[in-house]
Amino acid sequence: MTFSAAVLGASGYAGGEIVRLLDEHPNFVVEYLGAHSREGEALGDVHPQLSGGLRQFGSNDVEDLPDVDIVFLGLPHGSSTDVGIALAESGARVVDLGSDFRMDSAARYQAAYGSGHPRPDVLADWVYGLPELFRDDIAGARLVASPGCYPTSALLATVPLCSAGVIRQDAITINALSGVSGAGRALREDLLFGSVDEGVRAYGVTKHRHRPEIEMGIEEATGSRALVTFTPHLVPMQRGILSTVTAPVVDGTTLGDIRSALADKYDSEPFVEVIDLPPQTRWVVGSNRALISPYLDERTGMAVVLSAIDNLIKGAAGQAVQAANLMFGIDETAGLPVAGWMP
Amino acid sequence: MTFSAAVLGASGYAGGEIVRLLDEHPNFVVEYLGAHSREGEALGDVHPQLSGGLRQFGSNDVEDLPDVDIVFLGLPHGSSTDVGIALAESGARVVDLGSDFRMDSAARYQAAYGSGHPRPDVLADWVYGLPELFRDDIAGARLVASPGCYPTSALLATVPLCSAGVIRQDAITINALSGVSGAGRALREDLLFGSVDEGVRAYGVTKHRHRPEIEMGIEEATGSRALVTFTPHLVPMQRGILSTVTAPVVDGTTLGDIRSALADKYDSEPFVEVIDLPPQTRWVVGSNRALISPYLDERTGMAVVLSAIDNLIKGAAGQAVQAANLMFGIDETAGLPVAGWMP
Amino acid sequence: MTFSAAVLGASGYAGGEIVRLLDEHPNFVVEYLGAHSREGEALGDVHPQLSGGLRQFGSNDVEDLPDVDIVFLGLPHGSSTDVGIALAESGARVVDLGSDFRMDSAARYQAAYGSGHPRPDVLADWVYGLPELFRDDIAGARLVASPGCYPTSALLATVPLCSAGVIRQDAITINALSGVSGAGRALREDLLFGSVDEGVRAYGVTKHRHRPEIEMGIEEATGSRALVTFTPHLVPMQRGILSTVTAPVVDGTTLGDIRSALADKYDSEPFVEVIDLPPQTRWVVGSNRALISPYLDERTGMAVVLSAIDNLIKGAAGQAVQAANLMFGIDETAGLPVAGWMP
Amino acid sequence: MTFSAAVLGASGYAGGEIVRLLDEHPNFVVEYLGAHSREGEALGDVHPQLSGGLRQFGSNDVEDLPDVDIVFLGLPHGSSTDVGIALAESGARVVDLGSDFRMDSAARYQAAYGSGHPRPDVLADWVYGLPELFRDDIAGARLVASPGCYPTSALLATVPLCSAGVIRQDAITINALSGVSGAGRALREDLLFGSVDEGVRAYGVTKHRHRPEIEMGIEEATGSRALVTFTPHLVPMQRGILSTVTAPVVDGTTLGDIRSALADKYDSEPFVEVIDLPPQTRWVVGSNRALISPYLDERTGMAVVLSAIDNLIKGAAGQAVQAANLMFGIDETAGLPVAGWMP
Repeated sequence: MTFSAAVLGASGYAGGEIVRLLDEHPNFVVEYLGAHSREGEALGDVHPQLSGGLRQFGSNDVEDLPDVDIVFLGLPHGSSTDVGIALAESGARVVDLGSDFRMDSAARYQAAYGSGHPRPDVLADWVYGLPELFRDDIAGARLVASPGCYPTSALLATVPLCSAGVIRQDAITINALSGVSGAGRALREDLLFGSVDEGVRAYGVTKHRHRPEIEMGIEEATGSRALVTFTPHLVPMQRGILSTVTAPVVDGTTLGDIRSALADKYDSEPFVEVIDLPPQTRWVVGSNRALISPYLDERTGMAVVLSAIDNLIKGAAGQAVQAANLMFGIDETAGLPVAGWMP
Repeated sequence: MTFSAAVLGASGYAGGEIVRLLDEHPNFVVEYLGAHSREGEALGDVHPQLSGGLRQFGSNDVEDLPDVDIVFLGLPHGSSTDVGIALAESGARVVDLGSDFRMDSAARYQAAYGSGHPRPDVLADWVYGLPELFRDDIAGARLVASPGCYPTSALLATVPLCSAGVIRQDAITINALSGVSGAGRALREDLLFGSVDEGVRAYGVTKHRHRPEIEMGIEEATGSRALVTFTPHLVPMQRGILSTVTAPVVDGTTLGDIRSALADKYDSEPFVEVIDLPPQTRWVVGSNRALISPYLDERTGMAVVLSAIDNLIKGAAGQAVQAANLMFGIDETAGLPVAGWMP
Repeated sequence: MTFSAAVLGASGYAGGEIVRLLDEHPNFVVEYLGAHSREGEALGDVHPQLSGGLRQFGSNDVEDLPDVDIVFLGLPHGSSTDVGIALAESGARVVDLGSDFRMDSAARYQAAYGSGHPRPDVLADWVYGLPELFRDDIAGARLVASPGCYPTSALLATVPLCSAGVIRQDAITINALSGVSGAGRALREDLLFGSVDEGVRAYGVTKHRHRPEIEMGIEEATGSRALVTFTPHLVPMQRGILSTVTAPVVDGTTLGDIRSALADKYDSEPFVEVIDLPPQTRWVVGSNRALISPYLDERTGMAVVLSAIDNLIKGAAGQAVQAANLMFGIDETAGLPVAGWMP
Repeated sequence: MTFSAAVLGASGYAGGEIVRLLDEHPNFVVEYLGAHSREGEALGDVHPQLSGGLRQFGSNDVEDLPDVDIVFLGLPHGSSTDVGIALAESGARVVDLGSDFRMDSAARYQAAYGSGHPRPDVLADWVYGLPELFRDDIAGARLVASPGCYPTSALLATVPLCSAGVIRQDAITINALSGVSGAGRALREDLLFGSVDEGVRAYGVTKHRHRPEIEMGIEEATGSRALVTFTPHLVPMQRGILSTVTAPVVDGTTLGDIRSALADKYDSEPFVEVIDLPPQTRWVVGSNRALISPYLDERTGMAVVLSAIDNLIKGAAGQAVQAANLMFGIDETAGLPVAGWMP
C-alpha cells in the first residue's frame, strides 16, 4: 500500500530529513516539495546530500499543492497556522512539525510564545504526536502536532516516573544539551562555525519556549501540575540531544522502583530502550531510537535520569513519520532506522 | 533470494558498517560475527549504535565459522592472508577489505608494505574490487580484494583521464584529506581527541602504503606506467575523503575534453556523479556515492580534479557490499544508500 | 624579583600550561622539568607548542630536584602524597595541582576516592588554593592544594549565594559541561577522537570524585552542611567548563538579592566578572577569567547560576600560578592572561 | 619607549587579534578602535574574550582618528584604498592587513581581483610586509601592506627553494588547508556551523585571488617568472593554515640540498623553524611561529614541503605587529608569542 505525501518547508534541516526518510519508506511517495525562499530551486542545490536532486521546489502555498494523502509541515514558528487550518478543512491528513498546534490551550500558547494564538478554537482538533505516550490518540487522528525535540527527550524520561509517582513533578530540573541543527538553518551570527566551535553556552535560561510544552506533556499524562526548571545548552556538534533530568524522589523510592517504572513503560517499545550506563548521543544519532538511563543519588534523594535522542529524527522527522505510520495503520516502525551512525 | 554472510573483524569501524549495511540489505543475512580482542562480547557493547545488540562475537578463526555463502574480512593488515587462503580453499566467496590480496604482484606488495608477501602465488586468485573500473572481473569472481579508501577516491578521479590520454600519468600529484575513522579504532596517542581536534597534519609523506595501490590501479587500467606523488592529510572530522588531483594536461586538452572523459565513463554509473562545483565530503557522507569535479588551470596547464567519498562506505563497507551484489548477480545497488546525512 | 621553579608531571596538559605561563611570567624562572614516562625526552617532543623545546625532562623524583623556590606538582591522583610530604619536610614551597592534599579530613578523602588517605595526619598542613575564597590563607601558606577544575567553577558560583543565605545549600543541583582536556592526556578508548567528536555524554553520575570537594568548599566557607547532586558531562571541545547550578532560593529572595550577593563578593576581583547574559566558555578560554551569570525562575523558585572558566587555566595551571603569586607576595595577576582566544 | 596606535576594522577576527597583541605589547598603547557596523558598541560586546571591554568603537573614518604613531587597518577588500592614501598623506605610519596595497602593479591587481586598481600610482609607496623575506624594506618603510595568510604560508616554504634554484618555480602545486577564521566573520550560509563542521571542501579552484600574490612574492624574490597551481581548502577548525607544496626538483637535487636551502635562510630567524617531521597546525596556533618541513620523493622527482602557521597571527595580526616592531626599530619579537596553545 502506498500513500502520496507532500512536504512543505522542505528546505530546512528537518524538512530534508523527512524527504530522506520518505524516499526510503516502503509506503510513502513524495509527490511535492514546498519551500519559501528556495522556491524554484532544485532539491540537489538545497540538500546536496539527498538523491533525486533534480526535483524542484514549489511554493509553500496550499493552493499549489497537488491532492495528496498526507502533508508534512516543516515551517517556521507561526507559519503553520493558516496552512494547517486550510489543510484541515480540505480533509487532508497533516503532521505539523512546527509549534503552532502543539499547545492544548490558548493560555499555554501565550505562556510559551508570548502572544495570543490567532485561532485558539482549532487547538483541540490536533493531537500531540508523541507515540510512546499518546499512541491511541495518534492512530485515530487526522491532524497531528509533532512534539519539539527538547520535549520529546524530556517527556520520555519524566512521564513514566511522574505517572508512577516516584519523583516529585513540582520540582523537576532539566538541563539539556543540543547539537546545533536544533536551531535550524537560519543565518545568524551566533550559529557561525566561528561562534559555535570549541565552546558551550546556555541560552533561553528560565524562559525557553519548550518549557511550557514539557510541563503540558507531564500534566496531560498525569493530571497533576508540573513545575520544570529548564536550561538548554548549545554544544559544538551537529545532531543529538541529551537531557539530564534531576528531581527529588518521593520518600522511600529506590533505584529499583525507578527502573521498574521505566521498564514497565518501555519494554515493548520498538524505539525506546532503558539501559544502565550513561547514554551517548552518538549511539542514537542517525536512528529513531531513544536511550534512557536512570540513577538515584541516595545521599541527596535525587533521581538523575539521562535521555538521548537524535533531535532531527526522533526529535523531528522520524517522529513525524512514526506518527504518520500510525495514522495510516501501517507498521509503526516502517521506514524508520534503528541503527545509527558511528563514528 | 537471501544469502548468508559472516563478518570477521566486525569490531572495527569498517566491520561495524558492514554489519549495519547487511542488516538493512534485502538479500543478505548476517549469521556470524567474528572479533579478536572483543570475542565473547555483545555487539551492542562494541557498536552501541547498531541494532540487534545482543548478538555475540565469536572468534576470527576459520574453524569457528558456520557454513555461509560469503565472508567479509575486516581484519588488520597482514591478518587476512591465512584466513583468506583457508576460505578460498573451502570454496567460500570472500570479500577482503584488508590489504593482503590487493596487489597484483609480490614486487608491488613489497614496495607498499616493506616486506615480502608470504604467499605471492595466490595473489592472482583475487580480483581488485572497484566496480566502476573492474565490474566484469568482480561479477565473475569468487575472491575479491576490496580497494583502500584513498585508492578508491583517487582512481575514480584519475583513471578515466589517463585512459582518455588527457593528463600525463607520469606526473600526478594527489593531496588527500581524510577523516579520522580512516585510521581505524586503534588506541594511539595521535588519535586522541586532544591530539586531533582543531588541527591538520600531513603524514606518510612520500611513503604512504596506498600510493603503490593507486599506481597499480592506473597501470592496470591503462597498461602504462604511472607516477604519483601522494600526500595524505588527517582532518578533524569522523568520515570522508577528499582527494585533490593535480596533473599536467596533454597539450591541447580543454576542460571540455576532461569533462567528456569523465562523463563518458560515469554517466550510467549509479554511484558516481560528475558535478561542476567543488564537492564537499558532507554531501556524500552516509552514502555510497562518489562526487567528482574537474577544473583546468589554463595558465599553468594543470588539471585539478576533486573527488569526494565516505571513506567507510564507498571507501570500505559499501564498496564491499557493492562487489558482493555483483558476485551474486543481484542488483548492484541493493542495500546501498544513495542519500547521505547532512547536517 | 625572580624565583626559581620546578614542575613535576610537566608532560601532561596542565603541566604544559604551567610551563607556558611560567615561561612568560616576570617573576618565575623554570629551572627543572620532571616527567615519568617521558623522562629523558625533550620538551619540544612532548609539548611541540611550547618554546625552548630543547629543554629535557628529568625524573619526578624529589632527589633529582635542584634547590628551587617553588615546586608545582602536576602528578596523577595518588602520586603527590610522598613527593608532597618530602618537599614539605625539605622546607620548599609547593603547589599541588593533584587531589592528594585537597581534602580537609580523612573521611572526606575516603568519600571522594573510595580508599583511606595514606597520611591523614598531614592534611591540615595544606591550604585549599582558591584565591577568591581563601586568599589570606594562601598568602600565608607554604603548602597549597590547588582546587579541581569542576570545584573551581562550582564554588565560585555557589559560595557567595550560600554565604548570603539566598539559596538552599542542601538542595543544590550542578550540571557541568567539560572539554576533553579535563580528562588529561591518558590513552583511553573513550577519549579517542572517534569516541568523542560529535557526541555528548554524562559520566560519573551520582559518584564523581569532585562532588565531595565541592561540598567541602561550601561547608568550609559557610560552616553549614551542603548537599550537591553533581552530574558532569563530556563535550566535544578541547577546553572550558560551564557549570549550570540550579538551587531553590530561600523564600522572598529576588534576582536582585542574588546579583548583589555575587557583586559584593566579586566586584573587586581581578579574575571574576559577574555578567548578565549566559557566559560562553569561548569567552574565557585562554585566560584566567571566570564569568558568572545568575538567573531566577520565579515560577519554580529556582536560582540558575552559570559559571564559565578555562579548565586548564583558572581550573588548573593559572590558578596554581595565582596562588604562587600570593605565596611570594607579588602582584596576584602577574603573568596571568585576562584576554582569551576567540575564535 | 611607547607608541600610540589606532586599529580600524577592529571588530573582525584579525582586528580583535591586533588589539589583543597590542594590549599585551610593551611598546604600543591602543588609543583608538574603529569599526563600521559595530560603531558605538563596546569592545566587550564584539570581542567578549578581550579585556578592557568597556572601550568603545569609533568609526573607521580618518577624520575621527586621533593623532597616533601608527594605524593598523583590518578593513574588507577594497575599503583600505581611500583610508590608506589619506593616512599616507597625513604622514602617519600604516600597516594595512587588507589587500589594497599588496600588489606591485596594476596588472597584478587586475589579475587577482578582476578589476582595475583605483589608484595604481600609489602602489609603489607600499612595502610588502613579510619580514623574513623583505626585512630591510620594512624597517625603512612608513607604509606596509601586510601579506595574506595563504601567501605567508606558501612564500615561507617556496622562496628559499626557488632562490637556491633547487625546485622548478614554473611548476609549483600548492594545496592549502585553512581554518574557518580565514574567511572572516561574515554572515554567510556556507560558514554556518551546520555547513562547515564534519566536512572539507576545496574552493576558489584555479582562480583564488591569493595565487597572484604568491607568484608575485616568488618573482620579486627571484627575478624570474613563477607559475603556481593553487587549491585552497576549508577545514573544520577555527585557526591554522597548512600549505603542502609539491614541485619538481631541478635535476640532481638531493633532500640535503633542500634542507640546506631552508636552513640557510631560516637558521637565525626567531619565528621560523625547519623541522624534520610533518608540522601540525596545532603546534603553531596561538603563536607567531611558522614550521616548515621538506621531503623529497625520489621516485617522482618531486619535492614536498609542508608549512604551518596560525592564519590570524603569523598570517595576519602577528605579522602586522612584527612589521610595526621593525618600523619603529624596537625588538622584532616584542609582544609576539612564540609558545602556542595545545590542546
